[in-house]
Amino acid sequence: MIVILKQNPDKAQLDMLTKWLDDMGISVHTTVGHLQTILGLVGDTSKIDIDLIQALDIVEDVKRVQEPFKNANRKFHPDDTVVDVGGVKIGGGNFQVIAGPCSVESEEQICAVAKAVKASGATLLRGGAFKPRTSPYSFQGLREDGIRLLVEAKRETGLPIVTEIMDLSQLGLYDDVDMIQVGARNMQNFELLKELGHLRKPILLKRGLSSTLEELLMSAEYIMAGGNEQVVLCERGIRTFETYTRNTLDISAVPVLKDLSHLPVIVDPSHATGKHSLVPPTALAAVAAGADGLIIEVHNDPAHALCDGPQSLTPKNFERLMRSIDALRPYAYEREA
Amino acid sequence: MIVILKQNPDKAQLDMLTKWLDDMGISVHTTVGHLQTILGLVGDTSKIDIDLIQALDIVEDVKRVQEPFKNANRKFHPDDTVVDVGGVKIGGGNFQVIAGPCSVESEEQICAVAKAVKASGATLLRGGAFKPRTSPYSFQGLREDGIRLLVEAKRETGLPIVTEIMDLSQLGLYDDVDMIQVGARNMQNFELLKELGHLRKPILLKRGLSSTLEELLMSAEYIMAGGNEQVVLCERGIRTFETYTRNTLDISAVPVLKDLSHLPVIVDPSHATGKHSLVPPTALAAVAAGADGLIIEVHNDPAHALCDGPQSLTPKNFERLMRSIDALRPYAYEREA
Amino acid sequence: MIVILKQNPDKAQLDMLTKWLDDMGISVHTTVGHLQTILGLVGDTSKIDIDLIQALDIVEDVKRVQEPFKNANRKFHPDDTVVDVGGVKIGGGNFQVIAGPCSVESEEQICAVAKAVKASGATLLRGGAFKPRTSPYSFQGLREDGIRLLVEAKRETGLPIVTEIMDLSQLGLYDDVDMIQVGARNMQNFELLKELGHLRKPILLKRGLSSTLEELLMSAEYIMAGGNEQVVLCERGIRTFETYTRNTLDISAVPVLKDLSHLPVIVDPSHATGKHSLVPPTALAAVAAGADGLIIEVHNDPAHALCDGPQSLTPKNFERLMRSIDALRPYAYEREA
Amino acid sequence: MIVILKQNPDKAQLDMLTKWLDDMGISVHTTVGHLQTILGLVGDTSKIDIDLIQALDIVEDVKRVQEPFKNANRKFHPDDTVVDVGGVKIGGGNFQVIAGPCSVESEEQICAVAKAVKASGATLLRGGAFKPRTSPYSFQGLREDGIRLLVEAKRETGLPIVTEIMDLSQLGLYDDVDMIQVGARNMQNFELLKELGHLRKPILLKRGLSSTLEELLMSAEYIMAGGNEQVVLCERGIRTFETYTRNTLDISAVPVLKDLSHLPVIVDPSHATGKHSLVPPTALAAVAAGADGLIIEVHNDPAHALCDGPQSLTPKNFERLMRSIDALRPYAYEREA
Repeated sequence: MIVILKQNPDKAQLDMLTKWLDDMGISVHTTVGHLQTILGLVGDTSKIDIDLIQALDIVEDVKRVQEPFKNANRKFHPDDTVVDVGGVKIGGGNFQVIAGPCSVESEEQICAVAKAVKASGATLLRGGAFKPRTSPYSFQGLREDGIRLLVEAKRETGLPIVTEIMDLSQLGLYDDVDMIQVGARNMQNFELLKELGHLRKPILLKRGLSSTLEELLMSAEYIMAGGNEQVVLCERGIRTFETYTRNTLDISAVPVLKDLSHLPVIVDPSHATGKHSLVPPTALAAVAAGADGLIIEVHNDPAHALCDGPQSLTPKNFERLMRSIDALRPYAYEREA
Repeated sequence: MIVILKQNPDKAQLDMLTKWLDDMGISVHTTVGHLQTILGLVGDTSKIDIDLIQALDIVEDVKRVQEPFKNANRKFHPDDTVVDVGGVKIGGGNFQVIAGPCSVESEEQICAVAKAVKASGATLLRGGAFKPRTSPYSFQGLREDGIRLLVEAKRETGLPIVTEIMDLSQLGLYDDVDMIQVGARNMQNFELLKELGHLRKPILLKRGLSSTLEELLMSAEYIMAGGNEQVVLCERGIRTFETYTRNTLDISAVPVLKDLSHLPVIVDPSHATGKHSLVPPTALAAVAAGADGLIIEVHNDPAHALCDGPQSLTPKNFERLMRSIDALRPYAYEREA
Repeated sequence: MIVILKQNPDKAQLDMLTKWLDDMGISVHTTVGHLQTILGLVGDTSKIDIDLIQALDIVEDVKRVQEPFKNANRKFHPDDTVVDVGGVKIGGGNFQVIAGPCSVESEEQICAVAKAVKASGATLLRGGAFKPRTSPYSFQGLREDGIRLLVEAKRETGLPIVTEIMDLSQLGLYDDVDMIQVGARNMQNFELLKELGHLRKPILLKRGLSSTLEELLMSAEYIMAGGNEQVVLCERGIRTFETYTRNTLDISAVPVLKDLSHLPVIVDPSHATGKHSLVPPTALAAVAAGADGLIIEVHNDPAHALCDGPQSLTPKNFERLMRSIDALRPYAYEREA
Repeated sequence: MIVILKQNPDKAQLDMLTKWLDDMGISVHTTVGHLQTILGLVGDTSKIDIDLIQALDIVEDVKRVQEPFKNANRKFHPDDTVVDVGGVKIGGGNFQVIAGPCSVESEEQICAVAKAVKASGATLLRGGAFKPRTSPYSFQGLREDGIRLLVEAKRETGLPIVTEIMDLSQLGLYDDVDMIQVGARNMQNFELLKELGHLRKPILLKRGLSSTLEELLMSAEYIMAGGNEQVVLCERGIRTFETYTRNTLDISAVPVLKDLSHLPVIVDPSHATGKHSLVPPTALAAVAAGADGLIIEVHNDPAHALCDGPQSLTPKNFERLMRSIDALRPYAYEREA
């Protein structure tokens, strides 16, 4: 950490700061310049509250030079983490496709879609039971019943299931869910993250609409700090000024996250683009960039989906995409160790 | 609502759509152009799921022409709503300043700050008990104890109190809290919003970092749909590419929200800018633009605040700002009815 | 075009508007709703000034339903345009890699890089002669001399050359340049675009840092309206809140632009990411998404490049990337006609 | 400037770097940490090319601790600059309103508006002769004739005139123009900025749609480096995800720019909001925040303006706004020296 002092800092305050850092086991190296004095802080600065220092009268600016995350940091854990979801491995060379409808609507629907996506090669089933909707007047999901139907589909197909949690109070319903999804809007629901850190169940953590990659990793850190290291990161598009697509898929997030962290990284092209015609090209791009998996919306009848219809693929289009993915995968980018 | 059809739409699908809309009490007016056919939908379209229509094969695009919020909409409630917080009125010409520390740290601290801000003219006390922090290693607030200390400060000064809730499970602790704050990161925590809709207590709803004004109003709608109409909207800066300030204060949000809605609108210049030196000019700007109030961080010793120090004012600077606000207020913008 | 009127519009003004539209050959279909009246405008609305209508007292909002670009629009020109740059074809199934240094620095440098990239399979040579730099104190390019050296490198290697123009006054120097690049900062330099429209030379048009895809196509339209149809579009990253990468590569831009327009689309992974280690994964992603080409910075000695060093590949890394591209290309996304 | 080295940097490269810096008169202070070595660079680092250092293999990151602008920097010129435009002073306590139509349309129009705004208290006349329009099919301004008409309006009213230049080739036409405006899209047209630096005429420099405040100051630096110190900065709204307003007025830009620089700062509420009803509240906000002036669009007949009608005030509304500004001005924020 670098602390840049204002011109002519008050001597007494500077001594107090130096002593306080010293007490925390941080050593301070001072560089005196013409217009500024710079303090180089050496030691474990990840637990220093940057705001505390920035608040001091003598301080002009503070710059971090070390990532503030530890458990999620590849520097401390060079090897890829492999997350096991009901026997299906993600990461460390294991590529998986999670597929299913936006919302669970009925037993027929979820079981039909589950069978179709399994036949095309998907290895995990997704489906929304609790649905975050911008409007209180939109369909909010089948809730408890939705989870029950997912479990039924899992029983029929053997596919482990992934579904979103919206509130801590729902946690009791997720015993038979194989992987709990934290949605974009909940990426910084810190109370939820802490509680999920006490589980020993894989978590699919989606990037917030306007969250930086560092913030995403700090949210993973919340879960991991509780002891749960089974976290899969998911890029699902960020909010920008461009309105043609629902969000802007940040494709660089894939190699960046894999450089900074040992956690698996998957991509959600359905939510990133919001248009089914854009799912195949962006899904292939994610594979090429080195993603460890994809999560894709598939519906047997997109025209009648209760939500997010415009971005869902038909089973037939999904099958075609899976064949393209299989063909391209051997030529995807591989990170150098 | 306007539905733009693709060229040569399938007749059977078009008939199905028209019938479905008809069943919902919506009448359809058709305009046939050279390249496109346009359907004008007339009736109460606020409950139509736009995604459902967009998913149809024959549809190229759907455009809403009516705001999707009703309870929060000024068109249906032309008069300003006045929110009463423990006897203190906000909105409809009533201007209030909410002040206090970022975090409650101790009884001495919160009571000293409470007395100071009251003496300068603040009419409501704020203070964080549960603190959303990006890092799990940062101070997370005194939690239950923090609320207890706020209630103590209220007993000593008579100031009604405002504090943030981070999770539904904490709701039982808020009985003596006069106004519950929903933070930016929780603006789309829909389960929380629904539950707050069942209370009869004022809610301070902060705009999310990357939420549109329409989304903010839809979140207010979630609360109001449950029957709780005591909602105060708060602009607190949005996330943009500019990094000099912590966020970008969207000053236009004040007149826009007051045009679109009858709810009171306040501004948080402390979080919007992240720098105490920028609080006075932006606070005065918010008053000039017609805000119904301000929420400002004040700390008796900013250099030792446990969080958000850089953006807090000293009581002395707060006093000076309050005098400037008093002087400027009579010349602020007034919306024409 | 859809015009939404305010409640109870003034009859005389409405008649005036209808007559004015009628005179322009636009027919108007009216839908009267409870809260709003909607006018559907049918005819060639691309030349109607949307601002003019929006300014009318009786108008609440105007929504376009037709793209405002014509020459660049795939609806009117379904077949892919193939741009010929000194005998090298881009688009319509022809994939090309443009490579070379950020800045031309010396004859040795540009010729050495040209030979190296040609040996690896690049078919066009890039190199900056006039350099847009944020700071007046940074190296501004060799200017006239830079172009002279590029022409020399073309003579030695046979590679057609691509270089950026920064101002109309430089146009006389570009006679021997095969393709003129309009940089991101000049994407809306309309006087420059108009003049380039009078040439019969290929133009490489880069998307502005915060330009929408529609604005990019409107800038292409400026060039094409002058009669020059040889335009190649280039996605090079947009400005967002994320600061880890220099810009955010909008990978969806590739399929979206190819859907909306018949012009070739290439990607610049070097400027989009700003880090050479991110160039290979994002370049492969662009190929997978269906791009018609890439423009990549290559330097023989990145550590001594006079500008943009951090994002340049060494010839050795470029060679390795070209082999990966060759392997992946057959499995890239192909747009359905 | 701070240079953060990778773990175990190559000794030879490090020596080379240190020597190179030494030769430039920069002294280097080294702090060796467990995971990183940090170099503190002391001396005049404003002319060091940050990219050059970042490109070195041994370097992980470079952080600037000093602003890269000098002539525009308040640290080196503590006193406010006062810009004189044809006898009208802006800055250093002098507040001015520039008003006029978006486009000059006819002699009657420009003279009528000029007289009206002068009568209401505007001291400078604006009007577009060359108009940057997104579409080649929109009205492009009266060009040479527009400037002639502006000069005529100046002759009739005595108001100095301000108008935009779009290309260097037009410079010869601006002899009788009192202040040349550089529009948002040209803020980084560096060739134009350099040339304007050789003039001795005031320049109104508008912030680019997605330019940071530092970039705006660097563009001012381009002009000032040429010797022209008469630069007025203008905040006119930035591009964000919010679509309700045309742009997002960054009100904090006013106090930030005035802290960082000695140049006058004005605000353009018309382009920032794009809606005439939002001009009065945001104009008052800008005054309250301490702006040195405003630039406001006024049209005698907004319904027939040839461009940008929706954001123009009528002379009557402008008169009302000027009275509100006069009343509020004495209570605006004043920067402490």
